[in-house]
Amino acid sequence: MIRMPDVITKKKNGKKLTNEEIDFVVRGYVEGQIPDYQMSAFLMAVCFCGMTKAEVSHLTKAMAASGDQVDLRTIPGFKADKHSTGGVGDKTTLIVAPLVASLGVKVAKMSGRGLGHTGGTIDKLESIPGFSTALSTDRFMKQVREIGIAIAGQTGNLVPADKKMYALRDVTSTVDSIPLIASSIMSKKLAAGSNGIVLDVKCGSGAFMKDRKSAVELARVMVDIGKAAGRKVSALVTDMDVPLGYAVGNSLEVLEAIETLSGRGPEDLRALCLELAAHMLSLAGQGSVDECRARAAEALDNKTALETFGKLIAAQGGDASVIKDPKKLPVAKFSKKLVSDVSGYVRRMDTEQVGIAASLLGAGRMTKEDVIDLGAGLVLQKKTGDRVEKGETLAVLYASEQGERMAAALDCLRKAYHFSEKKPKNQKLIYESVE
Amino acid sequence: MIRMPDVITKKKNGKKLTNEEIDFVVRGYVEGQIPDYQMSAFLMAVCFCGMTKAEVSHLTKAMAASGDQVDLRTIPGFKADKHSTGGVGDKTTLIVAPLVASLGVKVAKMSGRGLGHTGGTIDKLESIPGFSTALSTDRFMKQVREIGIAIAGQTGNLVPADKKMYALRDVTSTVDSIPLIASSIMSKKLAAGSNGIVLDVKCGSGAFMKDRKSAVELARVMVDIGKAAGRKVSALVTDMDVPLGYAVGNSLEVLEAIETLSGRGPEDLRALCLELAAHMLSLAGQGSVDECRARAAEALDNKTALETFGKLIAAQGGDASVIKDPKKLPVAKFSKKLVSDVSGYVRRMDTEQVGIAASLLGAGRMTKEDVIDLGAGLVLQKKTGDRVEKGETLAVLYASEQGERMAAALDCLRKAYHFSEKKPKNQKLIYESVE
Repeated sequence: MIRMPDVITKKKNGKKLTNEEIDFVVRGYVEGQIPDYQMSAFLMAVCFCGMTKAEVSHLTKAMAASGDQVDLRTIPGFKADKHSTGGVGDKTTLIVAPLVASLGVKVAKMSGRGLGHTGGTIDKLESIPGFSTALSTDRFMKQVREIGIAIAGQTGNLVPADKKMYALRDVTSTVDSIPLIASSIMSKKLAAGSNGIVLDVKCGSGAFMKDRKSAVELARVMVDIGKAAGRKVSALVTDMDVPLGYAVGNSLEVLEAIETLSGRGPEDLRALCLELAAHMLSLAGQGSVDECRARAAEALDNKTALETFGKLIAAQGGDASVIKDPKKLPVAKFSKKLVSDVSGYVRRMDTEQVGIAASLLGAGRMTKEDVIDLGAGLVLQKKTGDRVEKGETLAVLYASEQGERMAAALDCLRKAYHFSEKKPKNQKLIYESVE
Repeated sequence: MIRMPDVITKKKNGKKLTNEEIDFVVRGYVEGQIPDYQMSAFLMAVCFCGMTKAEVSHLTKAMAASGDQVDLRTIPGFKADKHSTGGVGDKTTLIVAPLVASLGVKVAKMSGRGLGHTGGTIDKLESIPGFSTALSTDRFMKQVREIGIAIAGQTGNLVPADKKMYALRDVTSTVDSIPLIASSIMSKKLAAGSNGIVLDVKCGSGAFMKDRKSAVELARVMVDIGKAAGRKVSALVTDMDVPLGYAVGNSLEVLEAIETLSGRGPEDLRALCLELAAHMLSLAGQGSVDECRARAAEALDNKTALETFGKLIAAQGGDASVIKDPKKLPVAKFSKKLVSDVSGYVRRMDTEQVGIAASLLGAGRMTKEDVIDLGAGLVLQKKTGDRVEKGETLAVLYASEQGERMAAALDCLRKAYHFSEKKPKNQKLIYESVE
């Protein structure tokens, strides 16, 4: 008989757990036989001792199997999913999902709301008037079959092991462990049922992973987990030292996504979206990454991707005319400019502070109960590397009230900018891909 | 404001906690604001990262202050306490306490029952007909004032932090951490109020600390804690590769203690008792350890220590005539000899197995609910280094029934003996002292 104290001791002593022991831990915890206090001691031991490739793969499978799993086999064709570890201004799903769907890859995407500086993909989409993300399973499946894409909020009992473990990790200082982060993310991706998964692992001042080495390691572990579970997976390790694009905030990001889907949009955002889409298309067997990148660029430039976005909006009850008339998107009533009091180059940005500024304006959610102001946020005018003259606008901030929050956000955003007299070196956007 | 997740993170990152943070953890846990699952994650982080001398000293003080503390200031003279980390056949308190009391040092001893291969000091004393260890505080204090010695079971709310932490550590694989072991032991010693404390840290196959290095480290940490709290402390690191003395079992150990208090008894037991007593007397200011050892030997040989033991028994309601007529002690009805099936020298003993054999006979307690058979146990005839001929008796086992338990104990004890043709080297009993 397996006993939890023995499993904890084994991991604490740096030994490798068997599949049976891992199943015992996951099942016992979800079913309530293993109390929180043993689980948290176990998780802390994992933080110190890590897990082998075989252990973390089995842990992830056991977590994915702890609740409902989406069965996409009745939908013909290759189903692709993407996941970003999160960063400031990351609206890539809004662009990449319709982009690859317009090229024949099926996107059956479940998305969470989560906590953060801005809302999640679900919140962003809900800033489109009428758009609903609460779809029944039948409607969700039917929509993917008919128009090739659906994006819905998580329903049902998906990966309860992760929900319970994450809530515990959050209050016991056991979040920052690569096997625990990897199994948390990948268990949800496995349960969501797609054949191919492209991961975007961010690193830098605005990301959870601050350095490239740990970002690459996380990418490696996640790719291995996915492959061990029989999925096609690749990962990009990308920069989050600078916000992605210029807009940070829910409706503001939808606006920028529409721009990008129209063949315009910020250069960095377009480049990253093309890279992610190229990897998804390539996993789907549409050719080399280079070939797929060219096809994706064409789909942006000829607006077929934008058209698919319109179909998605319409299918989910939204006002699809926003893609031609983005002024219909809500924008908060009051705006204020952040003006530079120096001349020089933007040497670097505290990207996390940019996110906090957006959150102060009402764009984010710090507790599950917070209500997001979908029209609030900020639009940068200058980013790292840009030349600025004294008196020029650095950013425009949007909020539904003009009081303390606006002042606090302005102050916070000002502190996020750092200047120098010399132009800084160009920073890479995509560091490497992990297959 | 201090937050528990931040304290866990700090310790996990190997940082030193402040006194305020340590107070927050101990108070919050005892009062119930800090849940078990945060405490177990914290304790696991301590297992990996350790604690500085200042941290563990403060932790111990905070634990000692978590409940009632015995105030011995109204009792004149130097009050000395001793503690052994536990081993097979360790009946030193029964000898050392009356021995130092007979030489003018006050002994106001609180003792627990605990779990183990035999009972604790309290259980051993209760094998003396009529002996009561449940004393009111008033009676306890009065007895120490009048005859210089009292040994009582723990009463009141002594160190609730340790009770709660130990119960959690026991089920979360966080027992084997030197700062946690040291603070657990020393918090109880500090709360028990004596001026001087002598620690006996056992190492070897029958002890929790298997190697000398960690035993010395534990001794060092405990001595430093005591000194930081203004107490006089010294520690001995002693051998537990071989059972101490020959008797293992409650009444059987009292019998051997009476032999030793009469100036006879096993050589190793006498030597260790003299060393412990010498250190206690020396801490009390009665001269050098060598001088004190000589005085202690005299008190054994002229039976003044035995007399004090008689006074202790009488004061606590026991039949003091046992010191002259030890046959009055209960001994289990059935006995069986373990006979050697080889000739040679006893090369080594698995001392923990000897303890388990005693426990199988009924001498120990594996759960708090178990009832101890005070007359059960075993008396070794041969120990490591002894010459044995085939057919000679190795040990005599005592139990209240002759069935399976006796057979299992015989089998267990036989496996504890390992023989060789050559006489093994003599093993040291006292490795070193830590001041």
